[in-house]
Amino acid sequence: MYELLFYLDIFGVIVFALSGALMAGRYQLDPFGVVVLASVTAVGGGTIRDVILQTPVFWVVKPYYLYVILATALLTIIIISKPKRIPKRFLLIADALGLALFAVVGTQKALHLGAPIPVAVVLGTITSIAGGMIRDVLCNVIPMILREEIYALAAILGGSLYVLLHWLGWSEISAMMVAVTAALTLRLAAIYWHLSLPAFHLIDLPSHDSNTDDANKQNSNNEESK
Amino acid sequence: MYELLFYLDIFGVIVFALSGALMAGRYQLDPFGVVVLASVTAVGGGTIRDVILQTPVFWVVKPYYLYVILATALLTIIIISKPKRIPKRFLLIADALGLALFAVVGTQKALHLGAPIPVAVVLGTITSIAGGMIRDVLCNVIPMILREEIYALAAILGGSLYVLLHWLGWSEISAMMVAVTAALTLRLAAIYWHLSLPAFHLIDLPSHDSNTDDANKQNSNNEESK
Amino acid sequence: MYELLFYLDIFGVIVFALSGALMAGRYQLDPFGVVVLASVTAVGGGTIRDVILQTPVFWVVKPYYLYVILATALLTIIIISKPKRIPKRFLLIADALGLALFAVVGTQKALHLGAPIPVAVVLGTITSIAGGMIRDVLCNVIPMILREEIYALAAILGGSLYVLLHWLGWSEISAMMVAVTAALTLRLAAIYWHLSLPAFHLIDLPSHDSNTDDANKQNSNNEESK
Repeated sequence: MYELLFYLDIFGVIVFALSGALMAGRYQLDPFGVVVLASVTAVGGGTIRDVILQTPVFWVVKPYYLYVILATALLTIIIISKPKRIPKRFLLIADALGLALFAVVGTQKALHLGAPIPVAVVLGTITSIAGGMIRDVLCNVIPMILREEIYALAAILGGSLYVLLHWLGWSEISAMMVAVTAALTLRLAAIYWHLSLPAFHLIDLPSHDSNTDDANKQNSNNEESK
Repeated sequence: MYELLFYLDIFGVIVFALSGALMAGRYQLDPFGVVVLASVTAVGGGTIRDVILQTPVFWVVKPYYLYVILATALLTIIIISKPKRIPKRFLLIADALGLALFAVVGTQKALHLGAPIPVAVVLGTITSIAGGMIRDVLCNVIPMILREEIYALAAILGGSLYVLLHWLGWSEISAMMVAVTAALTLRLAAIYWHLSLPAFHLIDLPSHDSNTDDANKQNSNNEESK
Repeated sequence: MYELLFYLDIFGVIVFALSGALMAGRYQLDPFGVVVLASVTAVGGGTIRDVILQTPVFWVVKPYYLYVILATALLTIIIISKPKRIPKRFLLIADALGLALFAVVGTQKALHLGAPIPVAVVLGTITSIAGGMIRDVLCNVIPMILREEIYALAAILGGSLYVLLHWLGWSEISAMMVAVTAALTLRLAAIYWHLSLPAFHLIDLPSHDSNTDDANKQNSNNEESK
């Protein structure tokens, strides 16, 4: 079992490092900048999880995570040399994979360390969305949770489903595989068919001090109306 | 006393969750996105405080905070269904309430855990401004501390006044009530009458590599000249 | 030795506080806002380092760091009263000094606390870049690591060189001085001569959902073509 958990965790780190490196490519960063952005994306969520749980941070204890990230970033730089080869979708899919994997792995780790069930699901969600959020905030891109359809839901589904199946007596391996698959399927479906839940939409009264926010809202509307 | 502290803390969580949910409404997030943004705003500051103090994070120990946030976010979605009902001011006022409450509660908790007085005031300020900062940064809005008049001052006043009154021998209840009221009054006065302290204004020499910042400054100037 | 380490650390805090205060000046913050932005910039990186290492946070244990930051912010406000006196370069140089100092001091502290070598270099890099990143993100400016040439490299060089020289048997004083000087020289050279490494450049296929990112890329291109 721990082997599977280990592989899922490493795979999550790789795909998030890849998404960070791809984002860095859009900003024409030098190789060291690419490595930094890939690292922040890959370990950001898990670091916050471990710090909140006050357990030793995973990559401090096991430095090989850093080598995996370094290798992923360098391979991304080397392999993707020709422009026009990587559509934007690739970044979205890497992010979706990381989201599904980390939601379940993060929930599992939190439960294992004795967190109550709702706290564990929240920590799984943090593990899965925080790295990508930091990546997007650093790049001054509006985070995916605000831009993309069914993002937080996929993460919450992954963690909750794992808890439910585990509670129903499923083996940990089956519970994890099914939960990861469900979260990933939901998120990929939302990407491909632009599925969305009914949005909570708030229009505010025009007021003399709302210039800034109107400008922001306009940007937001432009994005929605694409 | 601890009951009062408890209610002030819960009330702070509710108003910050509300401000996060209202901000989410401007960005047309789906319900799960609203819950995530409300949560981050409500527990962000306190989480950073607890992590820095290396004391167990409050919502990990007491998961009912999460239910309070969930309920606040859902109620906000349900109640505010009609557009044009919530002026922007509402978000500002919810934020001001949270700011005043968390500045005092955060300072009190840090003192209680043995932090030196200046550290306690700083941690109170962090508790009160960090959640809103994360909310604004995620939404790509310039944080209130940079946009609004007398923001950091209100937080620092709340914490410092609590320390002073407590040192003068006031009961903890009176010290907290007066400090919260003073911080809130100052912040609300700044909102309504656009009070401001003399700003520290720096104009830099034009230089060939200042394009980015000139653009930023122009935005900033537009906001100021509204 | 510990005296030197102490002075380097305090000096790093001062120059980062200065860079935060100068940035605050561009945004016409009130004095309390200046103090908050200076503090966040100066202690952000070290706080994250200490939290990840799960060692008591330096400014909680030694509150005089807060007085140093307060004094720096107030002096910056008082001395720089006349506009047009401070070119933008000053901020870049203060940031470069902080970057070089914190990269080495952070690595040294992490090694001292028993972190493995690669983890120590990563924590040194975090110490040196995180404060400035938070400063830039709060001000809605694209962080220097994405905007400026040879930024992450200078930080990684500082920490790695310290480790190497220390391992070669140099005294800690010489190793630190040489590593700080090397990182600072590299970063200043990149500032003055606009040196840059070959960038990892990724152009993606136009796709129907890339509006947002195209807009972002255009901004980025504008900056590059300045």
